[in-house]
Amino acid sequence: MSASDPVANLQTLIRCPSVTPAEGGALSTLEAMLVPLGFAVERIVASEPGMPDIENLYARLGTDGPHLMFAGHTDVVPPGDETSWRHPPFAAEIDAGELFGRGAVDMKGGIACFVAAVARHIEEHDPPKGSISFLITGDEEGPAVNGTEKLLKWAAEKGERWDACLVGEPTNPDVLGDMIKIGRRGSVSGKVTVFGVQGHAAYPHLADNPVRSLLPLAAALMDEPFDTGTPEFPASNLEVTSIDVGNPATNVIPAKAGFAFNIRFNDTWTAETLKAEIIRRLDKAATASPLRPGRAPARYEIVWAERPSHVFLTRNNGLIASLSGAVEEVTGRVPALSTTGGTSDARFIKDYCPVVEFGLVGQTMHMVDERVALADLETLTQIYGTFLSRWFDNALLS
Amino acid sequence: MSASDPVANLQTLIRCPSVTPAEGGALSTLEAMLVPLGFAVERIVASEPGMPDIENLYARLGTDGPHLMFAGHTDVVPPGDETSWRHPPFAAEIDAGELFGRGAVDMKGGIACFVAAVARHIEEHDPPKGSISFLITGDEEGPAVNGTEKLLKWAAEKGERWDACLVGEPTNPDVLGDMIKIGRRGSVSGKVTVFGVQGHAAYPHLADNPVRSLLPLAAALMDEPFDTGTPEFPASNLEVTSIDVGNPATNVIPAKAGFAFNIRFNDTWTAETLKAEIIRRLDKAATASPLRPGRAPARYEIVWAERPSHVFLTRNNGLIASLSGAVEEVTGRVPALSTTGGTSDARFIKDYCPVVEFGLVGQTMHMVDERVALADLETLTQIYGTFLSRWFDNALLS
Ligand SMILES: [Zn+2]
Ligand SMILES: [Zn+2]
Repeated sequence: MSASDPVANLQTLIRCPSVTPAEGGALSTLEAMLVPLGFAVERIVASEPGMPDIENLYARLGTDGPHLMFAGHTDVVPPGDETSWRHPPFAAEIDAGELFGRGAVDMKGGIACFVAAVARHIEEHDPPKGSISFLITGDEEGPAVNGTEKLLKWAAEKGERWDACLVGEPTNPDVLGDMIKIGRRGSVSGKVTVFGVQGHAAYPHLADNPVRSLLPLAAALMDEPFDTGTPEFPASNLEVTSIDVGNPATNVIPAKAGFAFNIRFNDTWTAETLKAEIIRRLDKAATASPLRPGRAPARYEIVWAERPSHVFLTRNNGLIASLSGAVEEVTGRVPALSTTGGTSDARFIKDYCPVVEFGLVGQTMHMVDERVALADLETLTQIYGTFLSRWFDNALLS
Repeated sequence: MSASDPVANLQTLIRCPSVTPAEGGALSTLEAMLVPLGFAVERIVASEPGMPDIENLYARLGTDGPHLMFAGHTDVVPPGDETSWRHPPFAAEIDAGELFGRGAVDMKGGIACFVAAVARHIEEHDPPKGSISFLITGDEEGPAVNGTEKLLKWAAEKGERWDACLVGEPTNPDVLGDMIKIGRRGSVSGKVTVFGVQGHAAYPHLADNPVRSLLPLAAALMDEPFDTGTPEFPASNLEVTSIDVGNPATNVIPAKAGFAFNIRFNDTWTAETLKAEIIRRLDKAATASPLRPGRAPARYEIVWAERPSHVFLTRNNGLIASLSGAVEEVTGRVPALSTTGGTSDARFIKDYCPVVEFGLVGQTMHMVDERVALADLETLTQIYGTFLSRWFDNALLS
């Protein structure tokens, strides 16, 4: 089997039920595609106390530079109610030019196309003058502690170095060719607990209602924009995502109240400067206390979520131009160079080499009836193939 | 047994473990005290679907007017952690001049003293020229649906009419003689649900965070006083007692958010005018939406708790003067005529006759080591006895 057909590649991958943390045969299937192409394949099991072991894969073709990494994941989110799918989520059935299945776009489809592009490149041009590697995790949709981050560390420790990376996540909002991601906002989460004094609602002067302290604190985090955006990034934005007091007795003033928030931030900030700004806002609001006239400043505690996602922006023009040019050559579209959306594993990769992201159309990802047009699989394979040629040509010249 | 010793009366009552809804022998004990004094005692079981049956007691001495009612409850709140009590909560042990036990002040103590006062009155003056009745429920500390309200209706339907009522709840903040309650604020509770549009925290423009709508709504109910009080009442006061979103995922904007509130209001308002004012404030805040610039008004729903407590104020000068005069004669203190604090069963009684409240010092009520000074039991018995004489003299004159 030549692995040059992205549709066949994807069908084989979808039929492996690799819902995180299960490997489900997906990495073995990928290994069986890569070995005949000449890749040296390694399977890496990552462990963490109290968590299921996770299987990961690293495969390299070639020994010299320049070295291009393709990164992604074979794990998928659960299918939800399987009976509401038009076609079973792990059957990979084709219906009216679309291939149905969990992972079709996020992101077994991207992997299937990149494998096909490499297979065709070898058929047409011999192996590239340099190296191609696959860095594929089974822990992107889960807690992501036994995935890309550990895999990169493992590979770097054994001497692997990369010149650039393409992440195959779905990046196009509507049509293939819409959008390349060249950066991502950072993300910081925290929980604030506000302390009061419990009491009876009939004797409010003997109590100190923490809700009166909480409301201005939560509002202070959302009422002024943190910035107005940068040339590459939209404005940073904070959402209070939950407030939880959990007091079932309407005649009782509770002792404490808490809220959780998440902020997506651009390169105006680092995680550290942003935390300082958040604390400055909270301290200011705690002192004002308009709902508690004459009282001492509100008392609060903040706990930051572990592992903030750091903001990054790729400025490697050769990498961006190779990918953007390939998209335009194959589709006729000039892709937007975007930094919108959530975080991705590219936030780990950017510490090792320049990274960009391009894959399928994301509309059905994580939904019932996740599916991809067969035409898109062929087009993406051509884009990836054109990108391979352009990137190696460019890297060998410079 | 003459029942003229309040300490003995209270010990017998405390040793009945009558935690709501259990009768625990408390009403039978009371019945055994009242029958020898000449009272006709009736035991009334009240039922409600899905709730435990509740025992109540009504006892009358005499057949003519004027007719004075003493109202109260023998049920008590749970003792909590019994091992943290200095003396077991149902042992009624005496230690250094104090009697320990659940219900000592709230309000088996008040009942014990009133029984003793009536017993002494009969010993000294013969039965009063008129009637005395006890209206005692076992459902004051619970949901209060099978208690005083039903008992009053039952008695009124069989022809009972009263000229005045004394409720024996603990009313004194610090020292016996501090405070008579001549009215109570009303209480209204409600729950507000605010609706938004769920989404990913990375795409806030595709979502509508209900927390952004909720914060100004909750603040609008607390930031302006509803009134400044009246000659008899403190200012009305609203507390938001809980906010609950229950969204565990910090990267998700929730679909809805809710909060609960309780307002204690004076006779500036009725429950109905107050509800209209609350809705006016919510509607105004929903339209402003400072945390959601450019968005449509916030959508919310309000559900009012069943059975608001209506505000009341007793203006019967003869009743107030008899009680106030008795307190001053026995203690040398001029009691404050107060309308502060929570609601009480007096809110039901005020529809049948003028009602005032006076009992023990409330400091240890509902707490571990609830207890009463033996001296206070004797003093309260003397106050109740003096009140009996004064009230009947006054009522027979007029
Ligand atoms: Zn993905
Ligand atoms: Zn009570």
